[in-house]
Amino acid sequence: MHFAFDPDTERRVETLRAFVTDEVDAALPQFDSEVADLGDRWAWSTVPVLQGLRERGRELGLWNAFLPGGRGAGLTNLQYAPLAEVTGRSIRLAPAALNCAAPDTGNMEVLAQFGTPEQQEQWLEPLLRGEIRSAFAMTEPDVASSDATNIGLRIERQGDEYVINGRKWWITGAMNPECAVLIVMGKTDPSADRHRQQSMVLVPRDTPGLEVVRGMEVFGYDDHDHGGHAELRFTDVRVPASNLVGEEGGGFAIAQARLGPGRIHHCMRSIGLAEVAIEAMCRRASGRVAFGRPIADQGVVRDWIAESRVRVEQLRLLVLKTAWLMDTVGNKGAHSEIQAIKIATPKTVEWILDKAIQTHGAAGLSQDHELALAFAGIRTLRFADGPDEVHKNALAKAELRRHTKTLDPRGAVSTPATPATKEN
Amino acid sequence: MHFAFDPDTERRVETLRAFVTDEVDAALPQFDSEVADLGDRWAWSTVPVLQGLRERGRELGLWNAFLPGGRGAGLTNLQYAPLAEVTGRSIRLAPAALNCAAPDTGNMEVLAQFGTPEQQEQWLEPLLRGEIRSAFAMTEPDVASSDATNIGLRIERQGDEYVINGRKWWITGAMNPECAVLIVMGKTDPSADRHRQQSMVLVPRDTPGLEVVRGMEVFGYDDHDHGGHAELRFTDVRVPASNLVGEEGGGFAIAQARLGPGRIHHCMRSIGLAEVAIEAMCRRASGRVAFGRPIADQGVVRDWIAESRVRVEQLRLLVLKTAWLMDTVGNKGAHSEIQAIKIATPKTVEWILDKAIQTHGAAGLSQDHELALAFAGIRTLRFADGPDEVHKNALAKAELRRHTKTLDPRGAVSTPATPATKEN
Amino acid sequence: MHFAFDPDTERRVETLRAFVTDEVDAALPQFDSEVADLGDRWAWSTVPVLQGLRERGRELGLWNAFLPGGRGAGLTNLQYAPLAEVTGRSIRLAPAALNCAAPDTGNMEVLAQFGTPEQQEQWLEPLLRGEIRSAFAMTEPDVASSDATNIGLRIERQGDEYVINGRKWWITGAMNPECAVLIVMGKTDPSADRHRQQSMVLVPRDTPGLEVVRGMEVFGYDDHDHGGHAELRFTDVRVPASNLVGEEGGGFAIAQARLGPGRIHHCMRSIGLAEVAIEAMCRRASGRVAFGRPIADQGVVRDWIAESRVRVEQLRLLVLKTAWLMDTVGNKGAHSEIQAIKIATPKTVEWILDKAIQTHGAAGLSQDHELALAFAGIRTLRFADGPDEVHKNALAKAELRRHTKTLDPRGAVSTPATPATKEN
Amino acid sequence: MHFAFDPDTERRVETLRAFVTDEVDAALPQFDSEVADLGDRWAWSTVPVLQGLRERGRELGLWNAFLPGGRGAGLTNLQYAPLAEVTGRSIRLAPAALNCAAPDTGNMEVLAQFGTPEQQEQWLEPLLRGEIRSAFAMTEPDVASSDATNIGLRIERQGDEYVINGRKWWITGAMNPECAVLIVMGKTDPSADRHRQQSMVLVPRDTPGLEVVRGMEVFGYDDHDHGGHAELRFTDVRVPASNLVGEEGGGFAIAQARLGPGRIHHCMRSIGLAEVAIEAMCRRASGRVAFGRPIADQGVVRDWIAESRVRVEQLRLLVLKTAWLMDTVGNKGAHSEIQAIKIATPKTVEWILDKAIQTHGAAGLSQDHELALAFAGIRTLRFADGPDEVHKNALAKAELRRHTKTLDPRGAVSTPATPATKEN
Repeated sequence: MHFAFDPDTERRVETLRAFVTDEVDAALPQFDSEVADLGDRWAWSTVPVLQGLRERGRELGLWNAFLPGGRGAGLTNLQYAPLAEVTGRSIRLAPAALNCAAPDTGNMEVLAQFGTPEQQEQWLEPLLRGEIRSAFAMTEPDVASSDATNIGLRIERQGDEYVINGRKWWITGAMNPECAVLIVMGKTDPSADRHRQQSMVLVPRDTPGLEVVRGMEVFGYDDHDHGGHAELRFTDVRVPASNLVGEEGGGFAIAQARLGPGRIHHCMRSIGLAEVAIEAMCRRASGRVAFGRPIADQGVVRDWIAESRVRVEQLRLLVLKTAWLMDTVGNKGAHSEIQAIKIATPKTVEWILDKAIQTHGAAGLSQDHELALAFAGIRTLRFADGPDEVHKNALAKAELRRHTKTLDPRGAVSTPATPATKEN
Repeated sequence: MHFAFDPDTERRVETLRAFVTDEVDAALPQFDSEVADLGDRWAWSTVPVLQGLRERGRELGLWNAFLPGGRGAGLTNLQYAPLAEVTGRSIRLAPAALNCAAPDTGNMEVLAQFGTPEQQEQWLEPLLRGEIRSAFAMTEPDVASSDATNIGLRIERQGDEYVINGRKWWITGAMNPECAVLIVMGKTDPSADRHRQQSMVLVPRDTPGLEVVRGMEVFGYDDHDHGGHAELRFTDVRVPASNLVGEEGGGFAIAQARLGPGRIHHCMRSIGLAEVAIEAMCRRASGRVAFGRPIADQGVVRDWIAESRVRVEQLRLLVLKTAWLMDTVGNKGAHSEIQAIKIATPKTVEWILDKAIQTHGAAGLSQDHELALAFAGIRTLRFADGPDEVHKNALAKAELRRHTKTLDPRGAVSTPATPATKEN
Repeated sequence: MHFAFDPDTERRVETLRAFVTDEVDAALPQFDSEVADLGDRWAWSTVPVLQGLRERGRELGLWNAFLPGGRGAGLTNLQYAPLAEVTGRSIRLAPAALNCAAPDTGNMEVLAQFGTPEQQEQWLEPLLRGEIRSAFAMTEPDVASSDATNIGLRIERQGDEYVINGRKWWITGAMNPECAVLIVMGKTDPSADRHRQQSMVLVPRDTPGLEVVRGMEVFGYDDHDHGGHAELRFTDVRVPASNLVGEEGGGFAIAQARLGPGRIHHCMRSIGLAEVAIEAMCRRASGRVAFGRPIADQGVVRDWIAESRVRVEQLRLLVLKTAWLMDTVGNKGAHSEIQAIKIATPKTVEWILDKAIQTHGAAGLSQDHELALAFAGIRTLRFADGPDEVHKNALAKAELRRHTKTLDPRGAVSTPATPATKEN
Repeated sequence: MHFAFDPDTERRVETLRAFVTDEVDAALPQFDSEVADLGDRWAWSTVPVLQGLRERGRELGLWNAFLPGGRGAGLTNLQYAPLAEVTGRSIRLAPAALNCAAPDTGNMEVLAQFGTPEQQEQWLEPLLRGEIRSAFAMTEPDVASSDATNIGLRIERQGDEYVINGRKWWITGAMNPECAVLIVMGKTDPSADRHRQQSMVLVPRDTPGLEVVRGMEVFGYDDHDHGGHAELRFTDVRVPASNLVGEEGGGFAIAQARLGPGRIHHCMRSIGLAEVAIEAMCRRASGRVAFGRPIADQGVVRDWIAESRVRVEQLRLLVLKTAWLMDTVGNKGAHSEIQAIKIATPKTVEWILDKAIQTHGAAGLSQDHELALAFAGIRTLRFADGPDEVHKNALAKAELRRHTKTLDPRGAVSTPATPATKEN
């Protein structure tokens, strides 16, 4: 066990950190101005300044850094994780500058792992080159989407086609005009086993019958920076049968496989955000004077700062260990940890953001800082991939099983799980 | 000691509750549509449907219900408090329908108590009739406004005029075209004693040199429903010396006097909001099915509901007791309690709103419910009139004094303060 | 609605406060020394100094203050509540000095309400005179006693006798040699309806077959000051059929009736304890110097003090309102509130005690202060009458029902419940 | 970075785990019985069963496992850490069975590092062989010991002797008759610089003038299992000048050096305790039925279990990283992390113990489980080496400095500290 990154990773982190601080952060005012000039705020990804940053991301060798294997940068989850943290420090542009922004990342992973050569040629390649963008359509209105059997969108085979009818919402990125394709989860066989009813199909964004009903807002934000969160209606949407991703009935399994790496990315980016918030809190506390002293002298503010540091250090280690487990024993072996970071991250980072906001006074809630925007984003993570409560319940069940079924009285290993013990 | 309202108050509460449920809530869609048609979203208070509601508010005898004495409905703080709670249940329109919306309420109180007959004639009367609206300009950018000595806006006497220079922000209502006048707090004598440097003057909204720089946003909301929160620049703004409110150097004392009743109103409205959130949480939990059962069957959701009920019951009693103390021993005698409700209310209601949101899934953060909007509003209360931490510090100091200076060893009375013991 | 006690109550509170401070607290060293000299630490209630205090309690007219009606002091729950708070300030002796100590109080209430004239003559009268003490045997080992149907102790009718077999534990007071009688809850008819299976019988302490197995400890305390908490074994214990309390199958109903007033007593005493803890925290913080300043200057300590004050004020009001409801609409009408104070009190007071301990450093955990002892006592309240979680669950169910069954859309009254609305 | 222990460590952990489960835990009843037969409960370390376990500890090669270098087992902090966790699973006997019990461990470290050859011969060797025990006398009554300048015990040089006068308390182990020597911290030069006033001297336990005043209790426990916590009075206690440890004025520096490894031991043992508590909670929840279902089915209990797992995983990683930092960049380089684990550990483990207790009902507070005893022990850690608040304050200061003094705008490294970056 040791806790230092390998030198290559250290070097990449330094390179990325310099890029983010010196170029990406510095480009934000121009980005905002170019988006304002566009006339279509959803088309944020088309503006010249971002194209320049993307060019630089390629030059630095960090393009598609998230993607393991030959198609991406060839990094492990553990090697990518600290890079994801740094992109979280400039969350509006840095992920996009490296072609590492959700939901494209997960979609590229799905296509790389489950796509046919034709699907990869048609959709994966342009995504990898950053020429198009995509969306992932899973969540539905009116039902608890954390329970996959609740999914109501219907995908019916008719001859050589699939016909799709139903509704989705919170489909991030779908309102970006560069979004060319959606991976859509729906039911192909409602009579199959609980986890074999669902399939995924590729639906080009301009297919007739696919309609954007409206954009969902989060705390008043329309999140046009991410291509918004669309509510979609599918009315007799027809795609060729060859648009099926993987096999019929395989939708649930693909969704599960998609979860793990995305969770690491989300969590590390959130930690980057938390670090930015702590720095902002410290600077504000040092610079702000009330009743004759900087508020950094107030014990309560110091308590917030110390707690923030202590919490974020623990959280980061758990996320990194999870990445390492995924690299060494696979997503399945890291199942409990993947749940654990989903539970721990939003709660911890939300707490830190709340304190950073409080340190900034009302300004902390306004457009003058990005703290409130960050809070809104992190708040949604308490629902993303199902509410925290669902994950806690599942984690507790596993823990209960572990301590009550044990045949060997010494079986419940409490020391850090290693690959070997993890497999049991 | 007893815990029932007098029958007249009960009757008024029932009347208002019926009005709010049957008429105000029912009018919201039309209100939104009329505001949308206006072309000027800040001018919300001019739309016909609100005028109709205001007419009804007058008919029901609840017009200006907040204002004690002959000019208003003649109610005590304790009698008005439950009415404020009911208006909190429909926060966007109900306060306005009764001419009981901040910041007009506090401004009317100031004018009623400290205004000259001419000032009352010119500004108080049309405010009471609901013909104009007003704003209160105290908070400033760049300084900790919870420390009154930090106030930087300058009010200088030049002959028969006051000349005003400086900046203000978070000035709620100032962007409403019906806003005719602002009460502006500034420094008339920086060399005077700490709490005698400030004065308040009346500044008509259209005075040359007074400029709206921009609207502040809270999370992503512009709060146009409240006339927004303006950042203002005062450049050589001139008003007649007769626009002074009260005496020179009296600004701090007026600000303090203005606090008490407003605090009660805010807190009771927040409690009304909390009740609406609890109801929404219960209904959602009962109607939403996950994994085969309504989520109301989940122990964690029940824990939230029970905690919400237990917390809000305690909170309401404290606010009502504070109102009673203000009625019986005055704002000064109720000083600690007025601080206590400022500390307790936002925290409690924010917690309840968070749980209500979580129960609603991502929809709870969206424009489909008003929970996120309510959360944003309550979150600002943790800064309003100074951050919670300032109030906790002051309350603790008083408590420390009480227990360490006592001459009589039995002096520290821990039973509920009565008027008599309160005076000590 | 108003928040002052009536003058008679105020006067009684002042009398009791003087008595507790000047006489009861002052007697503690002598009490400890007399108990040490006894040779039997369980027989604490027999020492002369306590007899003297009891004599004084009678003279002051506060003897049996807890008991409504002619047999006691004739006070309402609301009138007794502030007296209970004051006895909580000197929890080891003050309740006993007034003959207001649990479990005798609840037992006297049961005998006064459900006892036959013979039972009252034999047991109630000497209890009221303070000549004997008693215990209440309900909780059992091995089962969740919060679920009454789990009760396993068997009470079988055989001719003119009841024969009792089974085990009980946590039977407070049973190890005091002055304990003359136990009220024992058991099953008379396991085949009856869920809540009609149980009955209560009077069992003289010296009945053959009744055996003290051991004393239970709480943290490391044996609580001999309260007569300990005994584990008891009943082996063919025989009592005359006339020892039945109330009717056969009435045990559950009596247990419910016994709960309400005892809950008020417990909660108010706990609030008295919290006030003592706040005072101790303030004095310690003012007197203790670290790093050159009294720790009262530390923001975190002030935060604790302010939070303690704000929480205890809210809590007291809720308990007092509950007492008032019991007086006006009965225990049944106050059902939800009786649950609410059970949930709120231990949690709040435990939090305050924890902070008071932390302010005292390690000394706060030691025998030099009574804070750790108090913490242990309050911690048990999170289990007393069933764990908090059971009560939260029940309260949430009622809340859910209230908001989902409503026929009248305006029916969910959120303003403070009055007797009239409470009856609905 | 990787998260598996080396194979030797894995093997040692398995060996120790088997020993603790099969032999140490199994020996507890006999240990209790032998101590009861002793007649002197403080002399616990002399009983035969413990001698046998110590013999086994030696055979297994785990004797003095805590001590780095040739005198101990030669393990790094990171290699010893998981062993400390396992000893925490059987906290009453396992540390003693390996001669790894506080305060002897810290004292052996001090003597190994700062002792003269004569001091090592006289005291360190018998300690290493387990023939004697020792105590560490630093904390004093009446002052805040977290501030070293508050120390009042006087050590005066008179000719060839030091003369010691003053008081100490909470001196763990001093009441054990096997305790042969104390390391005593006191002031040799009150006029020196703040951190150069203190020195440490060795005081044999039987030196005239050294008197045990009493044993301190923690929540009613006398902790005789650890040799109690003595209050000591030093009256003209004379020791030869050669008993000075290190140099005059070096006391503060030695105390600081002693802190780091002890902190790791404490924290890892606490984590072992937390794991035992989680297991107990799971077993109890699975076995306990209320209202017809095991309480493991209750959502709130599952929430506790999941939170416990998520929190303890994060905590362990932070402690292990701290151990690794101490091994690679030294105690000074690990300064912030050593503070962080002091802040995080007691709070986290106390929370878990509270939930484990709650799951057990009142039995959880009693002598039938060791949960309440464990809670008491962990509660004291919130004071050990100074209250948490002192450490939070210091950590926050460092964090504030880091973010406000930065010359290089990219200097604030938020990725996990590596040795290289740590040195900056």
